[in-house]
Amino acid sequence: MAKDKQPQRPRAETPKGFRDYFGVEVIERKAMLDAIASVYHRYGFDPLETSAVETVAALGKFLPDVDRPNEGVFGWQDEDSDWLALRYDLTAPLARVAAQYRNDLPSPYRRYAFGPVWRNEKPGPGRFRQFYQCDADTVGAPSVAADAEICAMLADALETVGIARHDYVVRVNNRKVLNGVMEVAGVLDPSDPTRFEEARGIVLRAIDKLDRLGIEGVRALLGAGRRDASGDFTKGAGLSDSQAEVVIGFIEAKGATGAATVARLRELVAGSQIGVDGVDELETIATLLAAQGYGPDRIEIDPSVVRGLGYYTGPVFEAELTFDILDEKGRKRQFGSVAGGGRYDDLVKRFTGQSVPATGVSIGVDRLLAALRAKGQSQIASRGPIVVTVMDKERMADYMIMVGELRAAGLRAECYFGNPKSFGNQLKYADKRQSPIAVIQGADELGKGSVILKDLALGAKIAENASLEEWKSRPAQREVARVDLVAAVRDMLANG
Amino acid sequence: MAKDKQPQRPRAETPKGFRDYFGVEVIERKAMLDAIASVYHRYGFDPLETSAVETVAALGKFLPDVDRPNEGVFGWQDEDSDWLALRYDLTAPLARVAAQYRNDLPSPYRRYAFGPVWRNEKPGPGRFRQFYQCDADTVGAPSVAADAEICAMLADALETVGIARHDYVVRVNNRKVLNGVMEVAGVLDPSDPTRFEEARGIVLRAIDKLDRLGIEGVRALLGAGRRDASGDFTKGAGLSDSQAEVVIGFIEAKGATGAATVARLRELVAGSQIGVDGVDELETIATLLAAQGYGPDRIEIDPSVVRGLGYYTGPVFEAELTFDILDEKGRKRQFGSVAGGGRYDDLVKRFTGQSVPATGVSIGVDRLLAALRAKGQSQIASRGPIVVTVMDKERMADYMIMVGELRAAGLRAECYFGNPKSFGNQLKYADKRQSPIAVIQGADELGKGSVILKDLALGAKIAENASLEEWKSRPAQREVARVDLVAAVRDMLANG
Repeated sequence: MAKDKQPQRPRAETPKGFRDYFGVEVIERKAMLDAIASVYHRYGFDPLETSAVETVAALGKFLPDVDRPNEGVFGWQDEDSDWLALRYDLTAPLARVAAQYRNDLPSPYRRYAFGPVWRNEKPGPGRFRQFYQCDADTVGAPSVAADAEICAMLADALETVGIARHDYVVRVNNRKVLNGVMEVAGVLDPSDPTRFEEARGIVLRAIDKLDRLGIEGVRALLGAGRRDASGDFTKGAGLSDSQAEVVIGFIEAKGATGAATVARLRELVAGSQIGVDGVDELETIATLLAAQGYGPDRIEIDPSVVRGLGYYTGPVFEAELTFDILDEKGRKRQFGSVAGGGRYDDLVKRFTGQSVPATGVSIGVDRLLAALRAKGQSQIASRGPIVVTVMDKERMADYMIMVGELRAAGLRAECYFGNPKSFGNQLKYADKRQSPIAVIQGADELGKGSVILKDLALGAKIAENASLEEWKSRPAQREVARVDLVAAVRDMLANG
Repeated sequence: MAKDKQPQRPRAETPKGFRDYFGVEVIERKAMLDAIASVYHRYGFDPLETSAVETVAALGKFLPDVDRPNEGVFGWQDEDSDWLALRYDLTAPLARVAAQYRNDLPSPYRRYAFGPVWRNEKPGPGRFRQFYQCDADTVGAPSVAADAEICAMLADALETVGIARHDYVVRVNNRKVLNGVMEVAGVLDPSDPTRFEEARGIVLRAIDKLDRLGIEGVRALLGAGRRDASGDFTKGAGLSDSQAEVVIGFIEAKGATGAATVARLRELVAGSQIGVDGVDELETIATLLAAQGYGPDRIEIDPSVVRGLGYYTGPVFEAELTFDILDEKGRKRQFGSVAGGGRYDDLVKRFTGQSVPATGVSIGVDRLLAALRAKGQSQIASRGPIVVTVMDKERMADYMIMVGELRAAGLRAECYFGNPKSFGNQLKYADKRQSPIAVIQGADELGKGSVILKDLALGAKIAENASLEEWKSRPAQREVARVDLVAAVRDMLANG
C-alpha cells in the first residue's frame, strides 16, 4: 500500500524511434547542408520552409512512393475537427504551396527545402521516425532542360560537400522509355491506358526488385512467377519469353558510350511514340549537360536505374557513390545511392485541377553524411573549448577575465563552473570537452604574475585522480606571463 | 445529385495558425541564427538537437511559465499506447536529455538549441502555433558566475547580429530578493513555506502585470483588489499599506548606479536571509561582469524586471531594445523585450529525484528579426539571380552554357525555363525574381558574337507587355562580346 504513495517519476527517454543529436553531429550536418544550400542558391533556387504540420486533406492519403494508407503518418484531430498530421516528406508541402500561392510565385518556381520529416513506422536499427530530407525542385518547367539542370546541380552539390569527381556518378533513366518498351512488349495499349494495368504493375514491381533479385529473379517475375527461398510464390506478369526479352533488353541497354546506349534504346522502342519521346529526352539531357561540360564521367544515361520508375513520369535520376567502404565486419562494399529524383506530372492537380509539371531531387542527408564520415571528408574540427580552471573560487572574476580575453580574441573558451574543490574533476571535465588547453593559475602563479598552459591535445589520457602536483610535473605544459595569455594560447594551438 | 459526383478537391491551405516562410525570410533568419550560434560556440556551448516529438510523460503536465494543463500541446496516442506530443519549448527536452544522459554529458553542460516549437493555442494576428526558439542553458553550474556568463553572451549575441551598443540593455533581477521582500512584508514565513501561499501568488501575479496596469494597478492588487474598466473585480493580496510599500519599494528600487540599487535593496530585505542572499548574488553578477568590461551601459541591475519572477528561482534577466521604432500608425514606440531567462532549480528532479541547478536564456527569434528589419540592419541582399532569357528554344544548350559560366564564376544565375514564346513573360519573371541583370542573345546578337546585358536593378519597372524591340531601346543596357559575358556581368553588378 505504501508503494502506491511513491511519487511516480517519468522515464527520461526519447520516444521510441526518435533520437537526439549532440554537438559535432549537429555541426557536421549543418556544415553539409550549408554547403549544399550555397550551390542551390547559386543555381537560383530559393529556400522554402513550410511548417511541420499540414492538414491531412492537403497531405493526401498516400505516401508518394509506396502503396500505403495514411497510417504511415503521425496525425491527430484538431479542436475544430480538422485532421492534422506531421509532413512525411517535403514534396507534399511543396504541392500545397505551389497550389496555394500559384498567383504569387514566379513560374517556373525553383525552390529548395531542408528539414525533418516524420514517418509513423516501426523503428529499426538505423531507421528513425524523424529524419532529415534535403530537396530541390523546379515547378512549372515542362522542358527537360530543367531535369538536366537538377542533375548538374546534384553533381556540383556532391563535389562541394567533399565527394571527389569519379567517386560518384549521377545516372539518368526515363519512365517514358520503359513505357515504350511495355508498348513494344505488348503490355501497354496507348488507345486504352487501363488495359494490361495489372501486368504492368507486376512488371514495374519486378524491375524495381532488380537490385535484390538479380536479372534472373526479374525474368521469373516477368514470366510465370517466382518462388522464393521460403517457398512463397509471387505471381508473374505472364509475359512470353520474347516479350520478357524486350524488358530485360531495356534494363541491360547500357552501352560503352551514351551514344551507344541511346542507339540501343531506339532499337528497343521502335514503333512506340512515347518510347521515342523518352529516348529523345534522354538524348537532349545528355546533349545539354555535355555542352556545359558535364560528361559521362559525372552524369550518364543508364537504363538500369529502375528505382522510382513506378512513381515518376519522365526522367529519373539517382546519384551513386562509387567508392568502396568497409562495413562493420571489415568487408568491402559499395556505398550506393545517396540521392534520387525525377519528373512527376500533376504535382498540384489534386488541388487545382490543372496539370503543373515538376522535377526534383532529394538527397539522403544521413546517408551522405555517413559517406563523408567514411571518407574522412567531414571537415569539422571536433576541438572543444580552452578550459580555464578554478584554483580559488574567491578569484572567479580573475578566471572570467581570462576567458573573456580569449573569447574576445575569437578563441573558443570557457571557465569551469562545476564545484572547483576537486582538481581531478576539472581535468576530467576538460577531457570530456575535448579541450585542447587547460589554463591554470593557483596562488604560486598569481604571485609570479604567470599562468600555466597545459597542452591536453598533446598529453596522454589524464589519470583519473591526478593531484595538481602530479599533473603539473608532466611534460607538455608551459608557464607563461599572465599578460601573454592570448598569444601563448594561440602559439600552442598553432603548434599543437 | 450530379453535384455529389464532382470530385472533391482538397483546399490548398496552410493549417490555421501555421505559416510558410519564403526565400529571403528563411535566409535572414538563418543568417541571424548562424551569427548567434557563432557567439554561443565561442563561449563553449555545444548544439543539441532533440526531436520534435516527446512522450507526454517526459514533457510534463504543464507549460513551464503558465498555469495551464497540457491542452496547450499537440498530442496523440501512439499505436503502442504511449501518448506523444510536439515539444512546446526547448527547455522540457533539455530536462529530459540532462536526465537521460546524465552519466555521459560533461558537467556543467553548456548547450544551445535552435528550432521550432509548437503550441496548441488559438492563433491570432502575428501569433502562430509553430515558431522558432533559440535557447542557451548551462546545466549543473550552481554558481551565479554561470548567470553572469549568460548575460555577457546575450549582450555579445545582440551586438553580433547587428544591434548596436546602447541600442539594447540586459537587465538583471533576482527572485530571491523578491522572496526577501515578501518575508519582510510578512507574506513569507521561512519556517512554514506553505503559509501565505495564496497571498504570495496574488503578489506575483500583480507585479507581473506592472507593464499593463502601472504602479497604481499593482498597488491596488497588493491591497484590497482592483476593479477594471469593464467592472470586473480582481481580488487583492490583502496587504496593508505599509506591507505593500515594501513590495512597491522593491519594484522601484533602481538607483542612479548599480551600487545605489544594491544599497537600496539591502535596506529593503534587511532581516531576511534569502533576501540578503539574493542581493549578494546580484552584486556578484555585477562585479563579475564589470571585471570583464560589461558595465551598466550593457548589463544593469534593475528590480523592475518582473517578467518570469514567478517561474525562476534566482537571477532573472531580460534583454530590451531601447531604440524607438514607428508602428503601423506612424507612432513612436519602444521595441521592448527580445530575450529573457533566468535560473531555475530542479530541472531534472522530476526524472531523477536529484536537484540540478540550471540557468539559461531564450531569444525571441521573430521579435529580434523584426527589430533588425526595423533598424535596416538585416544584412541580406535580396538580390535575385541573373536571368538568361531564351530567345530561341532550339538554342537552349547555348543559354545553359552561359548560365554554367556565370555559376562557375560564383554568380547566382538561372535560365528561363517557362514557355519562352512571350518575351514579356520572361521579363515579368525576371522582375518577380528581383533579378539584377537579364542576359539576351537573339539571332542578331548571335550573328555578331555578342550578348545584351540589361541592367534591371537600374531600370524602371518593366512595362507589362513590352516588346523585345521597345525594351531593347531603353537605356541601362549594354551589348558586349559573348566571350566577355562573365566579366561584363561582374562589372555591371559592381557598378549597379
